[in-house]
Amino acid sequence: MHEERGIDHVGIVAPDLDEAVRVYKSLLGAEELGRENLPEQGVTVCALSVGGAVVELLSPTAADTGVARFLAARGPGLHHVAYRVQSVAAELDRLRDEGVRLVDDAPRLGMGGRLVAFVHPEGALGVLTELVEYSEASE
Amino acid sequence: MHEERGIDHVGIVAPDLDEAVRVYKSLLGAEELGRENLPEQGVTVCALSVGGAVVELLSPTAADTGVARFLAARGPGLHHVAYRVQSVAAELDRLRDEGVRLVDDAPRLGMGGRLVAFVHPEGALGVLTELVEYSEASE
Repeated sequence: MHEERGIDHVGIVAPDLDEAVRVYKSLLGAEELGRENLPEQGVTVCALSVGGAVVELLSPTAADTGVARFLAARGPGLHHVAYRVQSVAAELDRLRDEGVRLVDDAPRLGMGGRLVAFVHPEGALGVLTELVEYSEASE
Repeated sequence: MHEERGIDHVGIVAPDLDEAVRVYKSLLGAEELGRENLPEQGVTVCALSVGGAVVELLSPTAADTGVARFLAARGPGLHHVAYRVQSVAAELDRLRDEGVRLVDDAPRLGMGGRLVAFVHPEGALGVLTELVEYSEASE
């Protein structure tokens, strides 16, 4: 179903996860794939399938986190775009060598136990950009 | 290469299209697919391929347009997400019946001569949402 590279998902922040899921089911015929609480990031995440693509809805569960600050400052909306890469660690090395500003210095565990890392919006035209390690075994 | 549904592309606004293309080629190994001027929307668009997925970079060419106002108010960043649908007209009818606020009352021509329409961010968790008509003949 998934190609090896390309857009893995888009992340959308909303204050109320149940309401957000309801809106996207109605809007796009989205189907819920699963929910996950990521306490170290202070978010609850719900993955939706939209015709095979994934939309990730995020709601903050703690006040002093990036997602909570985003919501307070800008309201609900697009939060990040995630791209699949073969190796997050190798991409981080390459980007660091090119002087691109990173959020994460090393890969960490994201939703579904996959290795992820974020590139700072400053290095990506104002877009918080996530790299997600694709492995055939995980699909 | 493309699936019938799912995310068609993400749209990112930047003030300088050449610089934006350079950043995304370096960041993601993106390849330029083509540029198009859409005067009635006041934008120049460059489509990039990122591992098969498409990122659309937009720069305003006129001051009093949605993209120019977005850039002035929020700076560079994520502008919209586009999803493929079988029929834009049928989706607009369905969404109108559900009371979802629309930007476009009827399909219009977007990049590549495809039929598109935008759903107002108010109806989509703060996300400007584009519907793109998928036809096998156009791929």
